Amino acid sequence: MEAAQIIRQKRDGDRLSRDEIFDFVASYTRGEVPDYQASAWLMAVFFRGLDPQETADLTEAMLRSGTVMDFSAFAQAKVDKHSTGGVGDKTSLIVAPAAAAGGLLVPMISGRGLGHTGGTLDKLESIPGFRTRLSLDEFRQALSRTGAGLIGQTDDLAPADRKLYALRDVTATVESIPLISASIMSKKLAEGIDALVLDVKVGSGAFMKTLESARELARRMVEIGGACGKRVQALLTGMSQPLGCAVGNALEVVEALETLKGRGPQDLVQVSRELTALMFVLGGVDGTLEAARLRFDQALESGAALDRFAQIIAEQGGDARVVEDTSLLPQAAHQESIAAWQDGYISSLEAQAIGFASMRLGAGRERLDSVIDPAAGLVFEKKVGEAVEAGERICDLYTNDRSRLAEVRAALRSAIGIATEPVAAPPLILDRIPS
Amino acid sequence: MEAAQIIRQKRDGDRLSRDEIFDFVASYTRGEVPDYQASAWLMAVFFRGLDPQETADLTEAMLRSGTVMDFSAFAQAKVDKHSTGGVGDKTSLIVAPAAAAGGLLVPMISGRGLGHTGGTLDKLESIPGFRTRLSLDEFRQALSRTGAGLIGQTDDLAPADRKLYALRDVTATVESIPLISASIMSKKLAEGIDALVLDVKVGSGAFMKTLESARELARRMVEIGGACGKRVQALLTGMSQPLGCAVGNALEVVEALETLKGRGPQDLVQVSRELTALMFVLGGVDGTLEAARLRFDQALESGAALDRFAQIIAEQGGDARVVEDTSLLPQAAHQESIAAWQDGYISSLEAQAIGFASMRLGAGRERLDSVIDPAAGLVFEKKVGEAVEAGERICDLYTNDRSRLAEVRAALRSAIGIATEPVAAPPLILDRIPS
Repeated sequence: MEAAQIIRQKRDGDRLSRDEIFDFVASYTRGEVPDYQASAWLMAVFFRGLDPQETADLTEAMLRSGTVMDFSAFAQAKVDKHSTGGVGDKTSLIVAPAAAAGGLLVPMISGRGLGHTGGTLDKLESIPGFRTRLSLDEFRQALSRTGAGLIGQTDDLAPADRKLYALRDVTATVESIPLISASIMSKKLAEGIDALVLDVKVGSGAFMKTLESARELARRMVEIGGACGKRVQALLTGMSQPLGCAVGNALEVVEALETLKGRGPQDLVQVSRELTALMFVLGGVDGTLEAARLRFDQALESGAALDRFAQIIAEQGGDARVVEDTSLLPQAAHQESIAAWQDGYISSLEAQAIGFASMRLGAGRERLDSVIDPAAGLVFEKKVGEAVEAGERICDLYTNDRSRLAEVRAALRSAIGIATEPVAAPPLILDRIPS
Repeated sequence: MEAAQIIRQKRDGDRLSRDEIFDFVASYTRGEVPDYQASAWLMAVFFRGLDPQETADLTEAMLRSGTVMDFSAFAQAKVDKHSTGGVGDKTSLIVAPAAAAGGLLVPMISGRGLGHTGGTLDKLESIPGFRTRLSLDEFRQALSRTGAGLIGQTDDLAPADRKLYALRDVTATVESIPLISASIMSKKLAEGIDALVLDVKVGSGAFMKTLESARELARRMVEIGGACGKRVQALLTGMSQPLGCAVGNALEVVEALETLKGRGPQDLVQVSRELTALMFVLGGVDGTLEAARLRFDQALESGAALDRFAQIIAEQGGDARVVEDTSLLPQAAHQESIAAWQDGYISSLEAQAIGFASMRLGAGRERLDSVIDPAAGLVFEKKVGEAVEAGERICDLYTNDRSRLAEVRAALRSAIGIATEPVAAPPLILDRIPS
């Protein structure tokens, strides 16, 4: 394989064969193709794209660069859910136990938060003792005992993707739909799943700002799944305002627990229900979405999903008493509120700005090596469309770093809109792929 | 300066400021911007291009990365000629002494051959003793004594260009007109010249295969010259067949000497005359091209140009007796001929294939580290448009490696066309920029 020739072919818009893609990825992973050739190739892909077959080949080449888990010994259907990331998105903490309670095996590999977006691992680690780094044997044991396991990416899963992703990050080649699709799918398919439900977020707080780009990304990932023989479907869900009311790690765990107890905010419940129901259908547990939604509701009403979450926490070393006593979660030393400055209707809670505000309070990472404060974050009393009176609380701020409060208040003040005329709540489920 | 941001700007088609370009180039030269970021940027430039101001800024940034020579102490106008490279192009060996004999200072930095193209340094080094590596002091002394010096690029001239060029070579980012223009011009402007004549070759044996792309390259380089306050003009000359009759290093020295003696092939004489005349005009030695052409002819007829070449050879350590006795040049052990296989007219001497054939005989480099045979090459008895009879010699092959002969004969047989109907000689001077 001549790397410069592979770069030239892509540069000139010629298709790459499966062999060429596999060779290039394998040689890069082994260090035989240097970073400077890989980055030129990535930029050529940014401009020329990859067709569906090339994208599937790249995904599989990255997948095969490392371990592919095998859970075929388990009787249940293996189904995961993946979200493209947003603000206040704690659905994994609800979906995983509910899906496991409903009869699925959920081997879920999650990420950490960066910038304005949160990460499932950070949320879970706010539970005292919770371990997200399990060995493959521990992960298998957790799955066999609780039907779900929530861990971070391990070194031996899709190492080619990890290496390429780090390079993309510093060479302005992240924003390519085929590269994003292949990166996500190579990690997810390494979980050894039968089916996957994708939650592609759309809006200011999401990576995809427009419905069109989100549809394109969803279509690509669904195509890759099909090419690799997996059942994959996507929901496009709104991320113009935070999902639910809590933003910040321990605060989101509390909200997830409330939701599992049947007291969750309406938007979070709806998105969690739709995602879990689709998992049941793709996993063959239910024949229709209606039946699957009922199964989700029953898992909550019966307490089975909450019990399952307590088992998962205990199995992964966490203090399961938090399920009943959330005061065992980290608590912030300082709390303040933002009140409505006029009568009216909440017209916007700009998700990206709110995500950055939460990060500044300590809940998120400015850089990969930042240390986060699990207690920090925001809780909204009002969401878009709700009426407020002047002086009524819109939002509570939690932090252990008092020095950040003034700056964050000002940022939030700009992120919150109050209109004098009634405003409709934004739509939650924007599309399904395939429709 | 954030390198990823500079890459992103170019990727998205935004202009880069002079400061951004200077910063990026300087940081790359110092090793602070790694190769993998530079190659992603180069690929973004490949797709997005550089506007005239960005190209001029890149040229100057590369130029300023090293030493810029200063020959302002010399009374003569400092004028150089640069060719984009071809097959049988020995004009520098004629132009430099003729221009110096006519009153110009010619500080000429040349390159080596690679692939099917020849290089001035290789041709000169076929003269026993000739040194193309001079220190800056030796170069200055050579210029003061003979009015011309012909050397290779030194480490301290445009180091940014050298580093970027090596990277482009392995990342499929060579074929970009703004990058080619900036690379050539940064090296030429480092010579401390007042004016420059460009010989942009067009055709199968040239880098630019079409008149349109050659015009674009010429325009870019002329614009850069203008932006840097230099007088720059370009001739577009044909390279569909070799220039002159000889291809190969010592063989081309012989032909250059013949030309300086007034016995050169018509096409080589014409291109050399036009280039030198333009140098005289841009250098202010003559007011019109007609007067300047006469000056070139007189330099040849009087023997002044030949004498000047002998002085240059002696000054740079070579055996100047070769001027009168070419048997002192390296001689090939083996010689063969290719004869016409039918009556007719030479319809093509495919320049690129002929260049590769000469390379295979030993005259050129397959790789940068190949060792060349100065005696090897080809001499054509017939050029395109000339009549031949079956059995008449078209071409002589010279080599010290007999094992190559069969293969090269076959390749040449395909590169030579004989038509039954008369064929016109191809045009030599295709265009002038500015016209």
